Amino acid sequence: MARIVMKFGGTSVADLDRIRNVAQRVAREVRAAHEVAVVVSAMAGVTNQLVGWCQALSPLHDAREYDTVVATGEQVTTGLLAIALQEIGVEARSWQGWQIPIHTDRAHGKARIERIEGAELVRRMRGEGMDAPQVAVVAGFQGIGPDGRVTTLGRGGSDTSAVALAAAIGADRCDIYTDVDGVYTTDPRIVPGARKLDRISYEEMLELASVGAKVLQTRSVEMAMNHRVRVRVLSSFQDADETSGTLVVDEDEIVEKEIVSGIAFSRDEAKVTIRRVPDRPGIAAAIFGAMASENINVDMIVQNLSADGTTDMTFTVGKSDLPRARAALDAARPQIGYAEIETDANVAKVSVVGVGMRSHAGVANTMFRALADRAINIQVISTSEIKVSVLIAADYTELAVRALHTAYGLDAA
Amino acid sequence: MARIVMKFGGTSVADLDRIRNVAQRVAREVRAAHEVAVVVSAMAGVTNQLVGWCQALSPLHDAREYDTVVATGEQVTTGLLAIALQEIGVEARSWQGWQIPIHTDRAHGKARIERIEGAELVRRMRGEGMDAPQVAVVAGFQGIGPDGRVTTLGRGGSDTSAVALAAAIGADRCDIYTDVDGVYTTDPRIVPGARKLDRISYEEMLELASVGAKVLQTRSVEMAMNHRVRVRVLSSFQDADETSGTLVVDEDEIVEKEIVSGIAFSRDEAKVTIRRVPDRPGIAAAIFGAMASENINVDMIVQNLSADGTTDMTFTVGKSDLPRARAALDAARPQIGYAEIETDANVAKVSVVGVGMRSHAGVANTMFRALADRAINIQVISTSEIKVSVLIAADYTELAVRALHTAYGLDAA
Repeated sequence: MARIVMKFGGTSVADLDRIRNVAQRVAREVRAAHEVAVVVSAMAGVTNQLVGWCQALSPLHDAREYDTVVATGEQVTTGLLAIALQEIGVEARSWQGWQIPIHTDRAHGKARIERIEGAELVRRMRGEGMDAPQVAVVAGFQGIGPDGRVTTLGRGGSDTSAVALAAAIGADRCDIYTDVDGVYTTDPRIVPGARKLDRISYEEMLELASVGAKVLQTRSVEMAMNHRVRVRVLSSFQDADETSGTLVVDEDEIVEKEIVSGIAFSRDEAKVTIRRVPDRPGIAAAIFGAMASENINVDMIVQNLSADGTTDMTFTVGKSDLPRARAALDAARPQIGYAEIETDANVAKVSVVGVGMRSHAGVANTMFRALADRAINIQVISTSEIKVSVLIAADYTELAVRALHTAYGLDAA
Repeated sequence: MARIVMKFGGTSVADLDRIRNVAQRVAREVRAAHEVAVVVSAMAGVTNQLVGWCQALSPLHDAREYDTVVATGEQVTTGLLAIALQEIGVEARSWQGWQIPIHTDRAHGKARIERIEGAELVRRMRGEGMDAPQVAVVAGFQGIGPDGRVTTLGRGGSDTSAVALAAAIGADRCDIYTDVDGVYTTDPRIVPGARKLDRISYEEMLELASVGAKVLQTRSVEMAMNHRVRVRVLSSFQDADETSGTLVVDEDEIVEKEIVSGIAFSRDEAKVTIRRVPDRPGIAAAIFGAMASENINVDMIVQNLSADGTTDMTFTVGKSDLPRARAALDAARPQIGYAEIETDANVAKVSVVGVGMRSHAGVANTMFRALADRAINIQVISTSEIKVSVLIAADYTELAVRALHTAYGLDAA
């Protein structure tokens, strides 16, 4: 007997038939004597419609009212799934963020969960003082702020809700049902020989998630790592057993560590190069302060020294932030005093990720050699303890990913 | 300056353009320095879709989960209207039943409002301690039960929400915006010469509402009468001024009382006749006890004594309750001991309503004569202090209504 959180995304609850399927899947866990909480998203398409209405009424709409409107999507799903569970004989009760409550900060539209009061849910999941255990059907993506108003966590926030709930109620596992059957060594649409990983560490998952493997939301992985929540990613459209999917766990739980676990890529970034910046202290602070004050995230940063006492600064920003980044740099030109700005949105970031890098030399070199063999030019390099990322021309993305997948011995036998 | 509640039904907020129109209408009241609370229904069609989903998943769905699902319709409208108001420069904030809170009993799906805590809303509507007065946009049709779960008031409950809110915050008036421009002497689709009434008493409105004039929900009129809330019914699709629509007020406020204010009719009832019931004490209790235990409302009741020591009992029930009424009577036949049951769903109830009846004799006789002149047979008669109702064959409904409208001098000049 275990206590588990099951999370189903929008495509898994897209219509009444799929909600019935989810109910059957939940019922199987209940019949196996598990204590179950389910976290659900809005039915696919619903959130987009609600967001569209808010935007149509006012491009600069009040985030508090946006949250009030958008949070209804998950509320509908909780009630419908509770009804579907009851219909097949499973005790169930829906819970909105304000009812549990799931306390968040006041950052409407992108709130962070601060505290979940899970005791009453656990009491019901265990069936204490009741005729039978009761499945808790919890609205993902939402909470309640300090002012008593509904908050939402931002797109993809239901993963975070599920992990946070699992931490709050001391769940043995958090199963994230999605439209893929696990985490792969890379995107199987690009490398048909990509292998599903049975286990992956939080750190690796975090790097994979943040560089474009869109399986789990980054914040949910961070939260799982911080609270040591065992997360399993598996398909809501396939039969599952205890060994299905990919388990995201502490590095210590992975016995046979691969040097490289996966190859990730992202086409969502754009490159900015600032030519001939005076090479003096405070210049980086001036450039990235201009970005920060516009709330623009900067990713890869490289600085090259020139002979003439100036320097070239290259960095990447989200593609959608590029126009604002450009405008902010134009405005800051008097303070920074650069010669010119070049931008290139036609780039891709390709990353090699693996906890085994810590103990193995030559990982980066394998990457550079494999790319050189295909005549792929590396524009920017950045590294972390368990990751090497390069920026290349976007046209070479698939070629680079396939070459690296082979170079690191990841292709299926 | 006045404190007013404005209520908009589903057709008035059916799409974004109509929500913008509602915002303009609210803005006009705010600019006239009124303190404004707005009560809204779900966008037209939304509630039906949500109800349909619940029924499709389980015909006997849990009313608590039904309420959770269905209450989202109003929640969406509150957020969207608040955004639309802010967009045109009007301070506004949405409020769900649980936030105010609007306390109800635990009768999910048909809850009754018990108490509304309006102080915070009033403070904001007055703009106390704020930069500007804030319009309260309140979700109709919903509240929160004693167990902290969302409740709904049953179909049409938003009228009741509006009147209850008006009573709670001491509003000077409750304006109900709907798709008709007021209360008429009868249905203008049947009698083109029907006149709009400037004022009507609570008692008359109650009789008109309960006999089929579908302008205001019966419970909302009862509540208005109990709390002496001045209710105005007016069109959301026409320009309005202080004299638009029909004001529903205390009888004392109506100076020129008409003997008869309106002619109402309903085709929603069916007639049940039980032949040759033993004429002994307790027999009516046996029959109507059988109805009550099935939760079937009985309306008109007539008992005729026969010569042979038996009696015939005739009464009406809602058309949709007829099969269950029939079954209950079949089951109770051993106790009641009747000879046979006849039912007729092809009937209509036509009613003449007016507070002036109290002081004028001959009102009923005018009705009987007018119907007799058209050879319309009266099957059942029932009367109250301010109403005379007759049951006739449904085919004669329009003929009867027109004849009565003329007979009581209600036709427009």
